[in-house]
Amino acid sequence: MNKELKEEKVFKDPVHRYIHVRDQLIWDLIGTKEFQRLRRVRQLGTTSLTFHGAEHSRFNHSLGVYEIMRRLTTTFSGKVHWREEDRLLALTASLLHDIGHGPFSHSFEKVFDTDHEEWTRKIILGKTEVNQVLIQVDPTYPQAVADVIEKTSANKLVTSMISSQIDADRMDYLLRDAYYTGVSYGQFDLERILRVMRPTEDQVVVKASGMHAVEDYIMSRYQMYWQVYFHPVTRSSEVILSKILKRVKALTEGNYSFKQEPIHFHSIFSGEMTLQDYLRLDESVMQFYFQCWQEETDPILADLCDRFLNRRLFDYAEFHPKERIYDWSRLTQLFAQANIDPDYYLVMDSSSDLPYDVYRPGEDERIPIQLLLPDGSLKELSSQSDVVDSISGKKRTDHKLYFPIDLIINDQIDPQIKSEIRSIIGW
Amino acid sequence: MNKELKEEKVFKDPVHRYIHVRDQLIWDLIGTKEFQRLRRVRQLGTTSLTFHGAEHSRFNHSLGVYEIMRRLTTTFSGKVHWREEDRLLALTASLLHDIGHGPFSHSFEKVFDTDHEEWTRKIILGKTEVNQVLIQVDPTYPQAVADVIEKTSANKLVTSMISSQIDADRMDYLLRDAYYTGVSYGQFDLERILRVMRPTEDQVVVKASGMHAVEDYIMSRYQMYWQVYFHPVTRSSEVILSKILKRVKALTEGNYSFKQEPIHFHSIFSGEMTLQDYLRLDESVMQFYFQCWQEETDPILADLCDRFLNRRLFDYAEFHPKERIYDWSRLTQLFAQANIDPDYYLVMDSSSDLPYDVYRPGEDERIPIQLLLPDGSLKELSSQSDVVDSISGKKRTDHKLYFPIDLIINDQIDPQIKSEIRSIIGW
Amino acid sequence: MNKELKEEKVFKDPVHRYIHVRDQLIWDLIGTKEFQRLRRVRQLGTTSLTFHGAEHSRFNHSLGVYEIMRRLTTTFSGKVHWREEDRLLALTASLLHDIGHGPFSHSFEKVFDTDHEEWTRKIILGKTEVNQVLIQVDPTYPQAVADVIEKTSANKLVTSMISSQIDADRMDYLLRDAYYTGVSYGQFDLERILRVMRPTEDQVVVKASGMHAVEDYIMSRYQMYWQVYFHPVTRSSEVILSKILKRVKALTEGNYSFKQEPIHFHSIFSGEMTLQDYLRLDESVMQFYFQCWQEETDPILADLCDRFLNRRLFDYAEFHPKERIYDWSRLTQLFAQANIDPDYYLVMDSSSDLPYDVYRPGEDERIPIQLLLPDGSLKELSSQSDVVDSISGKKRTDHKLYFPIDLIINDQIDPQIKSEIRSIIGW
Amino acid sequence: MNKELKEEKVFKDPVHRYIHVRDQLIWDLIGTKEFQRLRRVRQLGTTSLTFHGAEHSRFNHSLGVYEIMRRLTTTFSGKVHWREEDRLLALTASLLHDIGHGPFSHSFEKVFDTDHEEWTRKIILGKTEVNQVLIQVDPTYPQAVADVIEKTSANKLVTSMISSQIDADRMDYLLRDAYYTGVSYGQFDLERILRVMRPTEDQVVVKASGMHAVEDYIMSRYQMYWQVYFHPVTRSSEVILSKILKRVKALTEGNYSFKQEPIHFHSIFSGEMTLQDYLRLDESVMQFYFQCWQEETDPILADLCDRFLNRRLFDYAEFHPKERIYDWSRLTQLFAQANIDPDYYLVMDSSSDLPYDVYRPGEDERIPIQLLLPDGSLKELSSQSDVVDSISGKKRTDHKLYFPIDLIINDQIDPQIKSEIRSIIGW
Repeated sequence: MNKELKEEKVFKDPVHRYIHVRDQLIWDLIGTKEFQRLRRVRQLGTTSLTFHGAEHSRFNHSLGVYEIMRRLTTTFSGKVHWREEDRLLALTASLLHDIGHGPFSHSFEKVFDTDHEEWTRKIILGKTEVNQVLIQVDPTYPQAVADVIEKTSANKLVTSMISSQIDADRMDYLLRDAYYTGVSYGQFDLERILRVMRPTEDQVVVKASGMHAVEDYIMSRYQMYWQVYFHPVTRSSEVILSKILKRVKALTEGNYSFKQEPIHFHSIFSGEMTLQDYLRLDESVMQFYFQCWQEETDPILADLCDRFLNRRLFDYAEFHPKERIYDWSRLTQLFAQANIDPDYYLVMDSSSDLPYDVYRPGEDERIPIQLLLPDGSLKELSSQSDVVDSISGKKRTDHKLYFPIDLIINDQIDPQIKSEIRSIIGW
Repeated sequence: MNKELKEEKVFKDPVHRYIHVRDQLIWDLIGTKEFQRLRRVRQLGTTSLTFHGAEHSRFNHSLGVYEIMRRLTTTFSGKVHWREEDRLLALTASLLHDIGHGPFSHSFEKVFDTDHEEWTRKIILGKTEVNQVLIQVDPTYPQAVADVIEKTSANKLVTSMISSQIDADRMDYLLRDAYYTGVSYGQFDLERILRVMRPTEDQVVVKASGMHAVEDYIMSRYQMYWQVYFHPVTRSSEVILSKILKRVKALTEGNYSFKQEPIHFHSIFSGEMTLQDYLRLDESVMQFYFQCWQEETDPILADLCDRFLNRRLFDYAEFHPKERIYDWSRLTQLFAQANIDPDYYLVMDSSSDLPYDVYRPGEDERIPIQLLLPDGSLKELSSQSDVVDSISGKKRTDHKLYFPIDLIINDQIDPQIKSEIRSIIGW
Repeated sequence: MNKELKEEKVFKDPVHRYIHVRDQLIWDLIGTKEFQRLRRVRQLGTTSLTFHGAEHSRFNHSLGVYEIMRRLTTTFSGKVHWREEDRLLALTASLLHDIGHGPFSHSFEKVFDTDHEEWTRKIILGKTEVNQVLIQVDPTYPQAVADVIEKTSANKLVTSMISSQIDADRMDYLLRDAYYTGVSYGQFDLERILRVMRPTEDQVVVKASGMHAVEDYIMSRYQMYWQVYFHPVTRSSEVILSKILKRVKALTEGNYSFKQEPIHFHSIFSGEMTLQDYLRLDESVMQFYFQCWQEETDPILADLCDRFLNRRLFDYAEFHPKERIYDWSRLTQLFAQANIDPDYYLVMDSSSDLPYDVYRPGEDERIPIQLLLPDGSLKELSSQSDVVDSISGKKRTDHKLYFPIDLIINDQIDPQIKSEIRSIIGW
Repeated sequence: MNKELKEEKVFKDPVHRYIHVRDQLIWDLIGTKEFQRLRRVRQLGTTSLTFHGAEHSRFNHSLGVYEIMRRLTTTFSGKVHWREEDRLLALTASLLHDIGHGPFSHSFEKVFDTDHEEWTRKIILGKTEVNQVLIQVDPTYPQAVADVIEKTSANKLVTSMISSQIDADRMDYLLRDAYYTGVSYGQFDLERILRVMRPTEDQVVVKASGMHAVEDYIMSRYQMYWQVYFHPVTRSSEVILSKILKRVKALTEGNYSFKQEPIHFHSIFSGEMTLQDYLRLDESVMQFYFQCWQEETDPILADLCDRFLNRRLFDYAEFHPKERIYDWSRLTQLFAQANIDPDYYLVMDSSSDLPYDVYRPGEDERIPIQLLLPDGSLKELSSQSDVVDSISGKKRTDHKLYFPIDLIINDQIDPQIKSEIRSIIGW
């Protein structure tokens, strides 16, 4: 059973001023070691190498999502379609929605073919302090929370409050990431949006009078993706990070003898990672290894770790993979001839974003934002807003080629090879 | 020789909007590995356990101090007493003033009896990338920079711009720490203070018309100390951190067999730490060890690491050491009888701050803030401001007793011992 | 001749922090009575009846435009195509660009068929304190300034800095009106835009790397138009204001005997308004009359003045004039039958905005925003930005019908008439 | 009877984000003409002549005080000593507390020996729309509201929420005036202060844990007084304003024949001002007369009006009246000899502020701020806070002499007289 705290607790938060906790359950969840671990996983991974202010953790963001949800449930209180008994479920799911994130998730998941959502599930349902706290509400409560986070819950309304094209998660990260990076793009009128949100049977919708505030939110999201999240310098550091992990794996498989053995990675390389193993892997641990590995005898691993830690990143150029298939294969050859291993030093990276979309059955089924008209009917957002319509369904992709220019312009490279490389990459 | 960059570079900064770099020297210094290392040392150590927003690094702050100094030198340009050739020295010293900081400096320096200023000197003068960059200006330049930072320089004006009771360092950290914690106390009108600062032969002074802005700055500093820097919860985590280090040292000396040997600490325990050893010790490395040590067989080390990482901090009560000498020794006895090692679990912590002071020859010789009157004469700030006078020279100290209440209220403790402990600490 | 001030003067400004004045000319212009008069003309006319915070004057805004221009000329300093001798012209024109604005310009100009640009010209070239200050630079200087403001100057670069689709005027009013209303829409990164602006021979352009900042500015403008400037409640008050002026004119022509004769309006009614007459007409004077006229015997004038001053505005409904020609003429009849004079109490108001447009020869010739590519070529903004393209050239118009519902639902109206009116307006 | 509105109404407010209205009574009061009149009375009178941003009205501030009170009553809800039936009384009194303010109150009340509190009482109890709305709650309700505002109510708790040394009125004006002037001094943590306020039987008190937030508020108040409210330039404009009113009175009594008769002032000159007369006197009306009077034949009136409207203010110098009695009388003689009427052109102005005080029976009986300790006892603030103690009870006074230096340095003045005047005032 959840109880109310004797006295409300607050956290000072730079984005929402204060985060208010009134439920013993929420307080206890924040105190679990799995939740405290989020202090050691940064919200934006390597972004602080581009925007130095953005050193905030997922702990920070998770409290923010919870607070937005808390305010939303307060405005819903007493409204048709809103069941007061869903309040705690909504709060719990919002607080825990990111609990499965590992260090530098983006690169980590790609290299190790793992998925933070799977780990979220295990943390909620497995032998953890989080699970211990949750089952005190009810033995079925952990499953209910997991279902909401995994979007498999029958409670579609609460699910949409945490995972939709306008949800507590996105609203917090836009405001928070804008605050910490210092960019002005992520601003929108959160208070107004919360005021115009309404529960319906199976989804949260927005009163039509709030359409412009929602437009502004969608545009903020669009700008944040291209100005911050997909910044080419950040992607350069992610490219290097991926290559470090790839190299360690290859060396392990090749029986290379490490000065600092990657003990924390063994189980993941062997495909037998336990929940305990996973929880140990935070960003401090990763950085510890990277630092030690700067002194490994393997020159590629040592170099990549030096680049990552000391911010000697790869350079980049525009490069469209489909239009330049020949150039790509030629570049690979040239790098090999110049003794710059193309497997580690030549990377094609593509980022794409679909800032908003209508519902497309059978494809990536995103639930569109519905406007609630005065007559009670619903209209999909992009049918009412020119601005949103202009970006709706338009996936935008940016292709970049990453390479260390310092190795290429090196005097030891054959001048002809060097010249051909430079001509292809346009440097 | 320093050259101007072909094109100004900027960093987006949430506090100063943009940080502007126009000198090749500054750009190169930022790129050194010693400076990049500051990304892995947080500005406020364990404060983020109290104010979750405050996860920013010393890298962040160092850029900010540099930017304030840059703006200050711009306003000085062309003024009497200001020599344009000091500009670069002022910028360099402001950028590098914190470069010697280790992880969790406060606790670290206390336990290991080391001093970040000594390491700063070594980084600037020793075999480092920073030194390599500096000597390109002039072989005597590293020494000139070190002298300013150490306050031994003959250039008293530049020294006062970086180390006085109103300097670029303090002005940045108040604004920055307020921004990241989210508290409103650290605000003051930086732009106005920069406008009213004037160079004199041996010190930076403030035009009398700006007195109220300076009062406001002094009060901000006063509030930040008691609201943020000396927050009792933060001090609790520092207490635990110190005890972890103390325990590791004791175990090492006692030939305890570690599961995870404290390799990075060996040289410091043996008093033979090299600069290379020191530079390896960042907060990631410390946290790596703390995480591993949660699983050590030594119960004290394992427990303290668990407390630190999972934020199970010590509780606290008011306790004046001089007035309660008897209680202190009695408590020590009682803890020992209850099998709670008082060397690790009973801590007296005192924090004191002297928010402003006039010059007191022979004591801690602080240079007071001088107001420049319209007639050209100087008057010491507290002689003109009632508010500053009220706190001038008044050292304020706060004494707290720290202990883990969970161990004390444990059922296995003899009820009589427990009761006496609780009566002394008033819990 | 312009001289530099002995000491820089500053104004504290909530939007730009400080406004810096270093030129005697600018200082003297601010001190003229024609410029001080702008304190008595609000920037947003009747908007404060909708957004109570927006009570700021054109004095306020004019200083802001000047400050943005000052920062822009500072970044231009030393760049190709920028002539330092244009600096003062740019500053003067930006400071004075709004000096001809009368009270509640929007309604005033519509009713009296006058034009603030014509008055601006007269103030700069006529017998005024402003003119006296300007001719001290050079006898041809007033004309040069007027030409820039009127967009007839041969100096197209400076003209574009004050009047184009991204100019100092628009940038200040978006930020300022957002600040005073409290809405979040008007935010964009001014500092970044100033950094990426570049002078060319005949126009200010924007470096392509700043495209997203410009997109954000265009979207802010778009949102401010529909959220603030065209707010239906503001338009209601403007409708009433126009009708007051119309009524006074009709009464004057009809030899109505006023309790408070509209002395200040006589010359404008007779088409013989002098510059002195115009300068006397500020918002205080207008409001004085409105207040007195609440007690006139003419019921329409008294009622409209009461509505305006005491915020008893007209109600409104969507109404498309072209699609509902019949309804409009029927409504007019019904109002007349109900003894509610349709000339004063039934108003069709249409607002339209063209948020951005390319160059369309022969039409409203707007100079498009050009992006400066790394290779030195220029590309028009909407050809590079999907978002801007989506709103480019798309005039959006909103049609509303205004009427006082309290008069219509009055018991003294014939129920059948009332019912038909209500059915047409959908109330 | 008060009813709840069908749907909450909000006002966008730059200081509190939104102002929320849920009660029909509050909504109706805002719509009365007496409340709407506050739009035509500026909050800071002539301050905008010094800080151009500060053009906000008392309407603006009154909504803000109401909103702070609304939030305070929300946090009190359910607490001991708080009676839910006092909520509406607190809201009403906070909304109406300034309703009696006239134009430029400070000068106006001094010259005409009137008092806005008396007019507040008349507006609440007299024949007004406000009174009509209030009696719908209960016939005794207007008196109850008036008693709270006049501090004669038996309900001491509610009275202290609106009039004490830390009340909704002061908290709003500090934040609001700081926002509109753009100074950073007025900031404090409103949300925290509201969280730590507690009702007691006869006063609102503050939990001791919030002491530092209250210190910060007291210091903000102190700074705002000296940086903004008592700014010497603002006082110069007030001095002129007073002299205009004094001159008009003298001319009226002397049967001077006005071009623009001061009709709106007749009743106040004859001591027979009715409520209706008073309500007509807003700042627009005052400024209308000032503008007309620039063209009067009386040179003093015309000159003073020109100075006020066109910001040609008096200059000032430090001058202590008690220490320089001889200089004062000599100056008066000299001005008279120079034909500069000392009754209008030589003014001694003293401003004093008592930023905080303990209770002093028999004197100006201010209720001190009480801190609520964990044991339930109360301690007066200055006994706990060094900083507040340093300014407690210390009245600070600033004396300035005001005069138009342009008239004194005029060539037509006898050089010897001029020289002696300048030597006394030190110019």
